[in-house]
Amino acid sequence: MLHADDIIFAPATGNGGAISIVRISGAGCLELLDGVVELRRGIVSEAPGFSLRYGSVPGLDEVLVSIFRAPHSYTGEDMAEISCHASQYIVTELMGKLSAAGARLAEPGEFTQRAFLKGKMDLAQAEAVADLISSTSSAQHRVALNQLKGGYSAELQQIRAELLELTALMELELDFSEEDVEFADRGRLSALLNSAIARCTALSDSFRVGNAIRNGVPVAIIGAPNSGKSTLLNALLNDDRAIVSDIPGTTRDTVEETCVIDGILFRFIDTAGIRNATDEIERLGIERTHRKAAEAEVVLGLIDLSAAGSEEQFQEAAGNIAEMVDLERQKLLILANKADLGPCNKNVIDSNIFVSRADNKHNTIEILHISAKTGLGLEELRSHLVSASGIASANGTLVTNARHAEALRATASALAAVRSGLASGTPTDLLAEDLRSALGHLGTITGQITTNEVLGEIFSTFCIGK
Amino acid sequence: MLHADDIIFAPATGNGGAISIVRISGAGCLELLDGVVELRRGIVSEAPGFSLRYGSVPGLDEVLVSIFRAPHSYTGEDMAEISCHASQYIVTELMGKLSAAGARLAEPGEFTQRAFLKGKMDLAQAEAVADLISSTSSAQHRVALNQLKGGYSAELQQIRAELLELTALMELELDFSEEDVEFADRGRLSALLNSAIARCTALSDSFRVGNAIRNGVPVAIIGAPNSGKSTLLNALLNDDRAIVSDIPGTTRDTVEETCVIDGILFRFIDTAGIRNATDEIERLGIERTHRKAAEAEVVLGLIDLSAAGSEEQFQEAAGNIAEMVDLERQKLLILANKADLGPCNKNVIDSNIFVSRADNKHNTIEILHISAKTGLGLEELRSHLVSASGIASANGTLVTNARHAEALRATASALAAVRSGLASGTPTDLLAEDLRSALGHLGTITGQITTNEVLGEIFSTFCIGK
Repeated sequence: MLHADDIIFAPATGNGGAISIVRISGAGCLELLDGVVELRRGIVSEAPGFSLRYGSVPGLDEVLVSIFRAPHSYTGEDMAEISCHASQYIVTELMGKLSAAGARLAEPGEFTQRAFLKGKMDLAQAEAVADLISSTSSAQHRVALNQLKGGYSAELQQIRAELLELTALMELELDFSEEDVEFADRGRLSALLNSAIARCTALSDSFRVGNAIRNGVPVAIIGAPNSGKSTLLNALLNDDRAIVSDIPGTTRDTVEETCVIDGILFRFIDTAGIRNATDEIERLGIERTHRKAAEAEVVLGLIDLSAAGSEEQFQEAAGNIAEMVDLERQKLLILANKADLGPCNKNVIDSNIFVSRADNKHNTIEILHISAKTGLGLEELRSHLVSASGIASANGTLVTNARHAEALRATASALAAVRSGLASGTPTDLLAEDLRSALGHLGTITGQITTNEVLGEIFSTFCIGK
Repeated sequence: MLHADDIIFAPATGNGGAISIVRISGAGCLELLDGVVELRRGIVSEAPGFSLRYGSVPGLDEVLVSIFRAPHSYTGEDMAEISCHASQYIVTELMGKLSAAGARLAEPGEFTQRAFLKGKMDLAQAEAVADLISSTSSAQHRVALNQLKGGYSAELQQIRAELLELTALMELELDFSEEDVEFADRGRLSALLNSAIARCTALSDSFRVGNAIRNGVPVAIIGAPNSGKSTLLNALLNDDRAIVSDIPGTTRDTVEETCVIDGILFRFIDTAGIRNATDEIERLGIERTHRKAAEAEVVLGLIDLSAAGSEEQFQEAAGNIAEMVDLERQKLLILANKADLGPCNKNVIDSNIFVSRADNKHNTIEILHISAKTGLGLEELRSHLVSASGIASANGTLVTNARHAEALRATASALAAVRSGLASGTPTDLLAEDLRSALGHLGTITGQITTNEVLGEIFSTFCIGK
């Protein structure tokens, strides 16, 4: 555990810009600032909370100090934010002065960790802060903000309340077990168990969508060489970039292969072109494409309509693509590309195709006629992607954190053990152990039950100054 | 001229970090925020100046609002700074909401331009803001801070006062010119002129040092291939990097070839190795080295002591280097590198060397024995660089801005015209024109006399949000 009594400081803003902020937190930090900042009037330690003071760090810069007093601050401690000119030189010198005055540089996430330790937020909320900062799409942002505002925590508290009622009922049964009478409210016990299991399972299942929101919906574009994969990718990405650059003065750390459509982040998986394997090396390439495509939630199967001379050839190409897709788990959309060129008439290939696979599974796959080059059909493709992601229609609380999903699964499985134990007449005192384990797993999410190791892991992924 | 009545906003912090700030300024901006930010208690437009309020931008983020009221703000107008989580998504959405509420994105430097127009600072101070932000060494920073605090402006005001007294004296002479009596205080007139010319010249001359402080002291390292140039450069740079990385959590946008020694920024100019030119291509390479070396204020001539078998060979190598240096304008230091290896005994080559050049100029050049590899003599080299830069010993106000140096030169030259006119008996009314011109040039520095064009040019080099 970090020394919780130290006065900590850290830069809170990124590089560049016009102003930079250095944060400081901990009992005595305002008094410490009296020795570093000369206010135009008065001293920092006598300024009230939620006030701003103008002054200077002598010889260094003119600064504005925001003063917060415990417990009404982000960390719940006395805090200040020193706003100076955005020069790395000034920030470094200022931090040197704070260090010389007895404060120390904060570890990544240490401000938020203090907020958690001081009871300003639970662990799920603290994690939402990091998610909020890194959110790049409106869906990510919505989920993180809901979690930060405690919507998610409230749902977990509800499950916890059910589990506590369960525990009370089982203890009651335990008290009466000597008398060998059947416990009166067995129905209630069972109803609570079923409800808690259902809630936990629904939440942990939501991780599939939640994770797609947080890390992007994985989309694979597969097709023969020259079917237009990179043109399609560029068409999708460029449009996205154009939207972003509409707002001057903002820049985004874009990863080349992600784009936001209707507020949802999509992550395009690079795959090699497929063709009939004639040698070992090509076979390896196709295997790699298979594996990559398997990671995708949505697969776009690209077929060059101008090269597919006949409906039979098109059918064969579609079959080759379908071989690569797990149609029960993944969504496949066949894109008939270069629809502007022909020779296949747009009407020759219908809007659906019946595909036979080697494993004798037969499926009807939707076909979309597009031209990556002219933009024909791309708008329709975008709405297909959005609806295939399942995110737009997702409602309620979504789990975006793998640690939480794991804890929820463990909770549900411990509760399932209680349920089957009850059914098979296992003595109640043995079941209490499973129930405690369920409560334990649940508690790790909000931090009601934590170890220093878990805390350290969670906060070390934060940026410094948060 | 930009519309000075608009409510303007801009991101004020760089990308990354934990928190981001969006600034807004202009009459009515606090009332505008009432429609964008919901405070936990009260409304923004009723909060007093220099106070902080906690609230939220509904559906977007929890925010802190710093409130400033005219004239007690950076721009001198009503202003607010909205502090939100450092997500580019949130900042972009927040700016979208401000824009929808009727504000517009500020032009680069527009906040500072408003501060100038509202009389919060003069033009030289406004320019110092940009310099302060970009300062990376303590010397740069000291000069910019002095300028921001008005030290430089005070000096200019003194010159201006002298020129105004001069004008008054000359008008007096004009009044009496009909009577054909010699003006009583000719001595005072002359003293004022000489003083103002001397001050302007001293200031404009200080630009050489001021510019070196601002943009780095240009240093060329020249020497034969394999004399150890890149090892030396790395030794100088790496040490600098080590100092910077002592403070964790800070990153600097380092340009590969600059380093800060004793608070002074040095800029190393890349030069090709020199050797006896045997063909045309090599000759061109050496010419390029000549030109590059000519930009330098300090030239480090590197000679491999272990390769120079005899004192004569060393002498010849030193002569070749001296040929490339303008010894009247540039400082040359011969570095006897690989002093750890031999075979030349350290004592064989003295601490000075007498160099004869083809143009029959003979100079005594100082020699420093170093080893770029082991670090031998590098500390001494650093102090040589610092003293050769002339910055450590520079005192008084320094001009770092080419525009200012140009204006000061023009002022001095107009005043010189007045002086020679007086000496040759030019009628006073003709000299008044030159005097007005001198005042005009001086006024462009602090902005007492400006054109919109000049203003636009100055502020467009600012970053957005400043």
